[in-house]
Amino acid sequence: MDIKTVRLGLLGCGNVGAALARLVLADADVIAGRTGVRLEIARVAVRSRSKDRHVELDAEVWTTDAASVVADPAVDIVVEVLGGIEPARGLITAALAAGKPVVTANKELLANVGAELFDAADAAGVDLLFEAAVAGAIPLIRPLRESLVGERITRVMGIVNGTTNFILSQMAAHGTSYADALSEAQSLGYAERDPTADVEGYDAGAKAAIIASIAFGCRVVAGDVSHEGISSITAADISFAARLGYTIKLLAICERFDDGSVAVRVHPAMVANSHPLASVRDSFNAVFIEGDAMDQLMFYGRGAGGTPTASAVLGDVIDAAVNLTRGTAASVGHLRPAVIRPIDDLRSPFTLTLNVADAPGVLAAVAGVFGEEGVSIRSMEQEGLDGSARLVFITHSAREADVRATIRRLGALDVVHAVGNVLRVVEV
Amino acid sequence: MDIKTVRLGLLGCGNVGAALARLVLADADVIAGRTGVRLEIARVAVRSRSKDRHVELDAEVWTTDAASVVADPAVDIVVEVLGGIEPARGLITAALAAGKPVVTANKELLANVGAELFDAADAAGVDLLFEAAVAGAIPLIRPLRESLVGERITRVMGIVNGTTNFILSQMAAHGTSYADALSEAQSLGYAERDPTADVEGYDAGAKAAIIASIAFGCRVVAGDVSHEGISSITAADISFAARLGYTIKLLAICERFDDGSVAVRVHPAMVANSHPLASVRDSFNAVFIEGDAMDQLMFYGRGAGGTPTASAVLGDVIDAAVNLTRGTAASVGHLRPAVIRPIDDLRSPFTLTLNVADAPGVLAAVAGVFGEEGVSIRSMEQEGLDGSARLVFITHSAREADVRATIRRLGALDVVHAVGNVLRVVEV
Repeated sequence: MDIKTVRLGLLGCGNVGAALARLVLADADVIAGRTGVRLEIARVAVRSRSKDRHVELDAEVWTTDAASVVADPAVDIVVEVLGGIEPARGLITAALAAGKPVVTANKELLANVGAELFDAADAAGVDLLFEAAVAGAIPLIRPLRESLVGERITRVMGIVNGTTNFILSQMAAHGTSYADALSEAQSLGYAERDPTADVEGYDAGAKAAIIASIAFGCRVVAGDVSHEGISSITAADISFAARLGYTIKLLAICERFDDGSVAVRVHPAMVANSHPLASVRDSFNAVFIEGDAMDQLMFYGRGAGGTPTASAVLGDVIDAAVNLTRGTAASVGHLRPAVIRPIDDLRSPFTLTLNVADAPGVLAAVAGVFGEEGVSIRSMEQEGLDGSARLVFITHSAREADVRATIRRLGALDVVHAVGNVLRVVEV
Repeated sequence: MDIKTVRLGLLGCGNVGAALARLVLADADVIAGRTGVRLEIARVAVRSRSKDRHVELDAEVWTTDAASVVADPAVDIVVEVLGGIEPARGLITAALAAGKPVVTANKELLANVGAELFDAADAAGVDLLFEAAVAGAIPLIRPLRESLVGERITRVMGIVNGTTNFILSQMAAHGTSYADALSEAQSLGYAERDPTADVEGYDAGAKAAIIASIAFGCRVVAGDVSHEGISSITAADISFAARLGYTIKLLAICERFDDGSVAVRVHPAMVANSHPLASVRDSFNAVFIEGDAMDQLMFYGRGAGGTPTASAVLGDVIDAAVNLTRGTAASVGHLRPAVIRPIDDLRSPFTLTLNVADAPGVLAAVAGVFGEEGVSIRSMEQEGLDGSARLVFITHSAREADVRATIRRLGALDVVHAVGNVLRVVEV
């Protein structure tokens, strides 16, 4: 086989970048044998050269000038693992304009200005690949772009944030509180000191925007995604869910409706234990895809971590390198403007718990409110408490706005002492 | 976008072929919009023209002469959904030699003469794609060939036969016997009247041979695979497994060892309930992949059925069509000859149950046999029966040959009344 050398310029050398460099150095021969392409790391841009990254590269490879890496004629492919919007956006735009394929793991960038970058890649006729931006090591973008390009995908539901899945798994396994599970995640390095981006669903929301864009072929940005985090989930919610045969998961849900509109949201949900997503534990990620012809698919694996994420980057790098030697490039195609269906109009079954006075006529009053707001009750269970009662409702599929109106009116009733967490339900 | 027309010749129009034709007819516009390629069905070869296949194609499209479809200049891509080795092999070879890409769903063919066909495709510089041959609608071959080409895959474990998974799921859910669960699978159309190929592991073995070939880059054929089926699994085995926290699944296991040798086998195994494969129910399939960098991945979905399988064929057809318009082709690369490690040398933990005399010294005699054969016991449980006792052993990882020798010697002991099913154990 005729072996061609393809030279990489890395922008950033943190966990993922360093792991990628080590994989390339260790496996260049094997990769050359399988693909006919020998990968070399020509340049690496870092913020500071003083840190030891345990990557064995000559001193002249390293620089603090990222723009010089993009411009260097010795660099064939640019790998961006900086994160954040600038300077990544400018550097990637420059690389594409110079005809250099780009591989990026930057979800924030793609969830905000992805369409602009995809168009720039198409205009230049070069690859812009981003498998690692969405679910770490899990091959998801490539199957969506290639294997499923002929499929009418109707819904994608993902557990795409390992931190929150770890926290919820700990709460479920050990009955611990949210605060204790978060502390443990922080001490293990799974959660940041400021965990907002993870626990409030922003990280999952950015990934959902990218998934929706690719699955549905339209421009969904992070700002289109409705968010609800897990910080209000209690140990009582988790055990209540378990008793009913459900597991609480933070889901990113992307839906396409018959009128072509789409909805993208992140929120905790009660997932039936017989659903494959329910058994996704600890920091693992999984993405569940429903389509007309293929029915149901699920992809499961490591959503984060330096080496797993680097393995996805490496897959893209090899793809871009092979395409480069053949003079071809992949394309996500032109993304239509998205019509976003507001969250108020979405439908789902819900559970809610009410603490009510233990008196005659209470259930009738409560049920009347449901009925007037058009929310149909699928099941109700009553548990006695000291002097009061707890009602647990599961509704049939109902409009979000109607459920919210129901809850507002229930909360105003004298006989209702407290309204517990309202959770959406996902069945098989 | 400049739309190019690519014309398909279908060999066979059974469940999968007819579903494919309907998908192409229904979605040609959507596919053209997304990919720039308009698919048309130019010719369809069938055994008999009298059967109504509910596919709306002009009369002149249909023929009973498959070779004429391959030779027809109006056919750009050949889709083979005949099954079996001949005439599929000759027709595919002729298509490749004529420079026509081929998409096939034929596991039997690829598990026996795949390497010959891959070489023919490479020699002609055209695509030979076969996503649907292994796990129906699940994208597996493409991720192995593309996303994971830079990965050192160490093990692939799959539930790749829906019939047996349905039977085992029924037995586990309802405590039914193997015979009753098989009858139900037959009455639902999940199992053939002669179920041998499914229940004895031959279907899974053919798929395992293909998976191992692609994952490890070497020529593994169906004859290299060790088989053990599920027909000897009893309701007692299933409930015994459940009591210990395991689910019995028929697994296809492909392993690569540090010396480059590989082992491929199909057998029932006790899978720990915390393992993602344990929760794959009913007729679903799943493939669990382990590698150095990406850690663990699992792909889950429909492994069979006309429309799901056709969706995988369609993904390949679109890929081949796009490649054709660009003048490129994918390749699995040259497959090395495989060094097959014999099953005797493989290692795994095992469970086994013995009915023994309830007398002093029995456990010492039994344990002595384990020790002399080099099989180390991880745990033992004793249950009293009327006048005798049942011993349940779980071993540490042990050589197959040593376990078999142990069982032979145990069976010959006077104090051992019966040796139950011996099952390999898969932990997380």
